[in-house]
Amino acid sequence: MSRPIAIIGGTGKEGLGLALRWAQAGETVIIGSRDAKRAQEAAEKIKQRTGSAAKVSGDTNSAACAATDLLVLTVPFEGHAELLTQLKPAIRPGSIVIDATVPLAASIGGRATRTLGVWQGSAAQQTAELLSKEVVVVAAFHNVSSELLNAEGLVDCDVIVCSDHAEAIPVVQALAAKIPGVRAINGGKLENARIVEQITALLIGMNIRHKAHSGIRITGLPDTAYKTSQS
Amino acid sequence: MSRPIAIIGGTGKEGLGLALRWAQAGETVIIGSRDAKRAQEAAEKIKQRTGSAAKVSGDTNSAACAATDLLVLTVPFEGHAELLTQLKPAIRPGSIVIDATVPLAASIGGRATRTLGVWQGSAAQQTAELLSKEVVVVAAFHNVSSELLNAEGLVDCDVIVCSDHAEAIPVVQALAAKIPGVRAINGGKLENARIVEQITALLIGMNIRHKAHSGIRITGLPDTAYKTSQS
Repeated sequence: MSRPIAIIGGTGKEGLGLALRWAQAGETVIIGSRDAKRAQEAAEKIKQRTGSAAKVSGDTNSAACAATDLLVLTVPFEGHAELLTQLKPAIRPGSIVIDATVPLAASIGGRATRTLGVWQGSAAQQTAELLSKEVVVVAAFHNVSSELLNAEGLVDCDVIVCSDHAEAIPVVQALAAKIPGVRAINGGKLENARIVEQITALLIGMNIRHKAHSGIRITGLPDTAYKTSQS
Repeated sequence: MSRPIAIIGGTGKEGLGLALRWAQAGETVIIGSRDAKRAQEAAEKIKQRTGSAAKVSGDTNSAACAATDLLVLTVPFEGHAELLTQLKPAIRPGSIVIDATVPLAASIGGRATRTLGVWQGSAAQQTAELLSKEVVVVAAFHNVSSELLNAEGLVDCDVIVCSDHAEAIPVVQALAAKIPGVRAINGGKLENARIVEQITALLIGMNIRHKAHSGIRITGLPDTAYKTSQS
């Protein structure tokens, strides 16, 4: 995968963790932020951890969108719709937009163990509605602990990938499989993102109950269903 | 656990599978059905598989409710509310009612990969609303493949147990842990059942896509969070 990965809202914990793991895997990563300087500082921190050869840079969210056609959204739900509306002109037609947003009730001052009902069904479906029809929306990475991403070692979690664009699913599975320990699984249509997003709220409850960083694994599928760094 | 387990709607695949596993674990099981004869035939089949020493009998749903205070609901969602309303007088105050119902859209002729919105939030919360306040409703067993329960060998799946009655959660965890391979996890309040129920629809989609019998595991929790037959 030679094209750069732009992480929109990439200075948050989840975005930073993904940036770190992909930088470690040799990918070219652009961290996007409202503030270019903050993005550049985040890129510097990742270089400090990964080595100066790491291909990580920082820029504004809109410059990051304009620079590639592979975008990952890691933004809090409270800013999700507004940011997408702002970025829409900067997103190239044909781009893959990977949405990791979880509509936690914490976005409006509620609990992180509850989700908000999104009219379209899920945050990812809201993204699909807000952006151009020529953008390929994929939902993924909701259930991966940002703590584990930012730590060393294997990430003991499966990534469930949902999209109405079947051809984009293996692309995102390959991206997920670059994170050591992760197995990426086809989760079907984008409408299923509503379930995958909500699983995060369930895991957050378990994390609070047990002071842990939980994840999920899907069992019982044939080996070919799981994309890993070995497959 | 000496008290009998009554499985309401126990002649369906999920109910039969649970009955089989608990009979194999030496538990006393009463299979409930609308039709006592069908329930008795189902009990006979389980005895044939488990050995004549198995403590399994069959009866009407209401007789099964009256016979014990530990009930498991494995009924299709289309009959869920009506059946509970009928059974309400037969259910003893203080009973634990374990609801495994998933509100699949298939109940109204839709897809098994989609769920219906239940006004109360989940099938289990509907149960809590329909039954007496003196009944303890627990949601569990939604994600366990009936195919795996009815087969031999380990069931590669965690059971997430949700209830507003914290004291009932370990009781149901212990029951789940009698199924070899299963780990039972506290899933928090009953309101979380909406997430656990929906996971089943996601798994059904994966089963269709891969001709498989999938399940889930929660990773990253401390050992004490997982109740197993060894713990």
